[in-house]
Amino acid sequence: MAARGAPRRVADRWADLAQRSPAVEAVDALLRGLGQVMFQNNPLTGLLFLVGILVNSPKLAGTGLLGLAVSTLAAYLLGADRSLIRNGLFGFNGVLVGIGLALFLELDLLLGVYIVIGAAVSTVVMMALANLLSTWDMPALTAPFVLTTWLLLFAVYQFSALQPTDLIAPAAPTPEAAVQTDLRELATGSGGLTLANLAHGLFRGVGEVMFEDNLLSGLIFLAGIAVNSRISAGFALLGAALGLLTALVMGADGFTAYHGLYGFNAVLCAIAIGGVFFVLTWRSALYAAVAAIFSVPAFAAIAVLLSPIGMPALTAPFVLVTWLFLWPKAGFGALTPVPLADVSTAEKVRAAHLPRRP
Amino acid sequence: MAARGAPRRVADRWADLAQRSPAVEAVDALLRGLGQVMFQNNPLTGLLFLVGILVNSPKLAGTGLLGLAVSTLAAYLLGADRSLIRNGLFGFNGVLVGIGLALFLELDLLLGVYIVIGAAVSTVVMMALANLLSTWDMPALTAPFVLTTWLLLFAVYQFSALQPTDLIAPAAPTPEAAVQTDLRELATGSGGLTLANLAHGLFRGVGEVMFEDNLLSGLIFLAGIAVNSRISAGFALLGAALGLLTALVMGADGFTAYHGLYGFNAVLCAIAIGGVFFVLTWRSALYAAVAAIFSVPAFAAIAVLLSPIGMPALTAPFVLVTWLFLWPKAGFGALTPVPLADVSTAEKVRAAHLPRRP
Amino acid sequence: MAARGAPRRVADRWADLAQRSPAVEAVDALLRGLGQVMFQNNPLTGLLFLVGILVNSPKLAGTGLLGLAVSTLAAYLLGADRSLIRNGLFGFNGVLVGIGLALFLELDLLLGVYIVIGAAVSTVVMMALANLLSTWDMPALTAPFVLTTWLLLFAVYQFSALQPTDLIAPAAPTPEAAVQTDLRELATGSGGLTLANLAHGLFRGVGEVMFEDNLLSGLIFLAGIAVNSRISAGFALLGAALGLLTALVMGADGFTAYHGLYGFNAVLCAIAIGGVFFVLTWRSALYAAVAAIFSVPAFAAIAVLLSPIGMPALTAPFVLVTWLFLWPKAGFGALTPVPLADVSTAEKVRAAHLPRRP
Repeated sequence: MAARGAPRRVADRWADLAQRSPAVEAVDALLRGLGQVMFQNNPLTGLLFLVGILVNSPKLAGTGLLGLAVSTLAAYLLGADRSLIRNGLFGFNGVLVGIGLALFLELDLLLGVYIVIGAAVSTVVMMALANLLSTWDMPALTAPFVLTTWLLLFAVYQFSALQPTDLIAPAAPTPEAAVQTDLRELATGSGGLTLANLAHGLFRGVGEVMFEDNLLSGLIFLAGIAVNSRISAGFALLGAALGLLTALVMGADGFTAYHGLYGFNAVLCAIAIGGVFFVLTWRSALYAAVAAIFSVPAFAAIAVLLSPIGMPALTAPFVLVTWLFLWPKAGFGALTPVPLADVSTAEKVRAAHLPRRP
Repeated sequence: MAARGAPRRVADRWADLAQRSPAVEAVDALLRGLGQVMFQNNPLTGLLFLVGILVNSPKLAGTGLLGLAVSTLAAYLLGADRSLIRNGLFGFNGVLVGIGLALFLELDLLLGVYIVIGAAVSTVVMMALANLLSTWDMPALTAPFVLTTWLLLFAVYQFSALQPTDLIAPAAPTPEAAVQTDLRELATGSGGLTLANLAHGLFRGVGEVMFEDNLLSGLIFLAGIAVNSRISAGFALLGAALGLLTALVMGADGFTAYHGLYGFNAVLCAIAIGGVFFVLTWRSALYAAVAAIFSVPAFAAIAVLLSPIGMPALTAPFVLVTWLFLWPKAGFGALTPVPLADVSTAEKVRAAHLPRRP
Repeated sequence: MAARGAPRRVADRWADLAQRSPAVEAVDALLRGLGQVMFQNNPLTGLLFLVGILVNSPKLAGTGLLGLAVSTLAAYLLGADRSLIRNGLFGFNGVLVGIGLALFLELDLLLGVYIVIGAAVSTVVMMALANLLSTWDMPALTAPFVLTTWLLLFAVYQFSALQPTDLIAPAAPTPEAAVQTDLRELATGSGGLTLANLAHGLFRGVGEVMFEDNLLSGLIFLAGIAVNSRISAGFALLGAALGLLTALVMGADGFTAYHGLYGFNAVLCAIAIGGVFFVLTWRSALYAAVAAIFSVPAFAAIAVLLSPIGMPALTAPFVLVTWLFLWPKAGFGALTPVPLADVSTAEKVRAAHLPRRP
């Protein structure tokens, strides 16, 4: 504990400032919103996430911050519960809307307006789903982001004022087509199961949670998680590894695997189920691993379903799989669900819920 | 009040008759069913809606009345709550099923059978959704119509006994295709942002709520709403204007905009949120405007999603957007939701819920 | 009753054994899981269903048993309620996952792993939906099978380690294409409304509930139902007949009709609504018939929706239509819903709920 004294004092000082200054409080809420993308209610995590985005793309950092600010502001203006806003629960969908729209649509003045509307609507959808799901004490996850961004993206073919980027490419599936399984980068095309390629596939998987196709971003994101919860950081890495491994075993497309696209949903499933929404035990760890593995066919399936209109799966596989694995709640005696009001770091949840040994 | 004495007396006399004569009561319930398509529980509104359909298409009026009668009769036979039936809540989906099927399928004897089955099933779906949504005191809106009609329409490719009209045209989306943005009529092709073309786009947007691609129908529908609620008529017009304007700003297809297809979902969103399900305040008015604007990308998105099978979005964008904007309920302090049991005209709701000034 | 004495004694002896021997208890639970595919909580029904599958395809019997065992085992390991497991409620989705995946994917070592994962996940989804639907006391039906199998099947285009069979054939719908309405077999092509062809269409409709495209399988399945409930067997036959008849009237594809594909969803709708989840009266029988008829366009619609990616509707039409027809619950005075805790054979439900005549 002694070694952690200095960071702890900085954190306490920041919390103190946030209570006295509305400006610091707002910055704190925004940073927590960034951290909440991976269930980390911690401003330092959020700051590191921002750094991780910046090293890959200042443009995406900018549109992400726009989305973050607008969705949080919308929550204030609509009179949402202040403590929810302070914990960043109206920010994480907004930041993803901002990044997601800017990745799939060409930069344009109207794109800014589009992000503003999307981020504001993501706050409405967040409150809608929070109310709907409260019947079962279930979390909305990133469903507000997925739903809002899908509607805005699908529409783009009908609007001449916005242009899709090259990432949008409709193509009906063909059963005969051979899948290119060599693990390789899109640009250089250097392939094979090398250590470097595997490292890229692994850490880009963490980076892609926020659409950052970058090994360094992934590493910084992991560090950001670790400052708040080493368990969650471990499960993020485990999820990325299981996602990549499952994709390789199934003979999935090697470009897609290299760029981490089979990893990011697995990362989120693993964090959510491994300690956040179920108390961490070896049983829930195994359960989280199965969810992470299942997110791989789920991602492929949603990609196929959307392939005739060329649209991305976003984090829908994570939302769907995690909902399916969480909804059993107390129905499985082997697992202990965490009430939403008690959700905190995996460490604190474990300490609070597990019976202490005498 | 004095000026409104005569119509009031006619209305009272009608209500009196409806209580004494089962035949008049049935006609009253059917007319209210027509009015409920736009949330107006008023037989005169329903009568004017019928006139509005008739001036555009006697055929659609006929199939609409068939659907209306069958869905209401099904509710009686199944033993649904009588007061719900009397308020037209089992009629509005049926009338839309009748019109929608006849617009997208060629007239045929089997089409009649198809409408009868669809209208009856819409009553089952209405009760199913009413029960499902009662958990959150949420309205079913026109979801029963959308769901039932989608199933019956999608099936048409598999049935040689029914033929789709030219409005059904499958086409996979292509990112490169240019959108024709000139505001113009399908038939003559005369285009441009003229006052006449804008008027067509605006009022056809109201007309298209009941599939009537006709300026005059739109005007009569507006009059029909206004006899029951001037606030709702105002929001209908506001919705149509916002839908058209948003489509023009986004550079949407000019044919589609001219024919009111970017308007009808916005009209319904604006009426529903602007005074009916939230108490009218300047805040809820602004909220309704955002919903109306968001219905434009939502309509385009659902149209794109269904484009590979060439099927219409119907009022699904309205249902989806309005559900998303209503489900927050009391979660937003800036808005006052109206319990379903208290839903009435926007004027009465406002009078009952707003604190009176001394 | 005297004539039924011998079978009754065998049944009692089996129940006795199941209580004393864990091995027999496990076999009993697995057989009930097979029977629950058609709502029959009876080990003898399950045994006959297994025979029905075997006469058509030992391969599908094998993969079905694998799925059955894994999904039931997963429920034990996860600590699900023992009485639910004993009643086969975690088996029926697993057996369908095993058969469904093996029908649409080529046999392969990885297919075995795929079935194991799918069957285990179907148990998770079953518990998720059971918990979700408990809010309305609604059954999950075969939704866990449909959802899990769809995700695993859709993904196949992305995985080179698995190959789809010829049954997977993407094709965008075309409004002009003529439907081949002659009732005929795929292999020989001998067509026409002959008694033999009608019998094939009818009984294969029952067989296809478990993907068995075989007249004899259908007959054995009917016998399996009849040993537990003659009412359910009657409704299975009624559903198959209504499905086939509706398909013929609508001019549906004759191959599809011959092979029972318009029947299996109708069979399940008819059994579920005709006596199992609503007390059997002449009104609920009529209601079940309408549901069975409506399942025909619902099947065609879902097939069309999935045609661009070439994927099968599975029992989604049954799940959707039955949910829509059950969700009204007590909202229709003409029908008496059966609480899930009271669901048994149609005969017992009728005896318990109908007022006895003095």
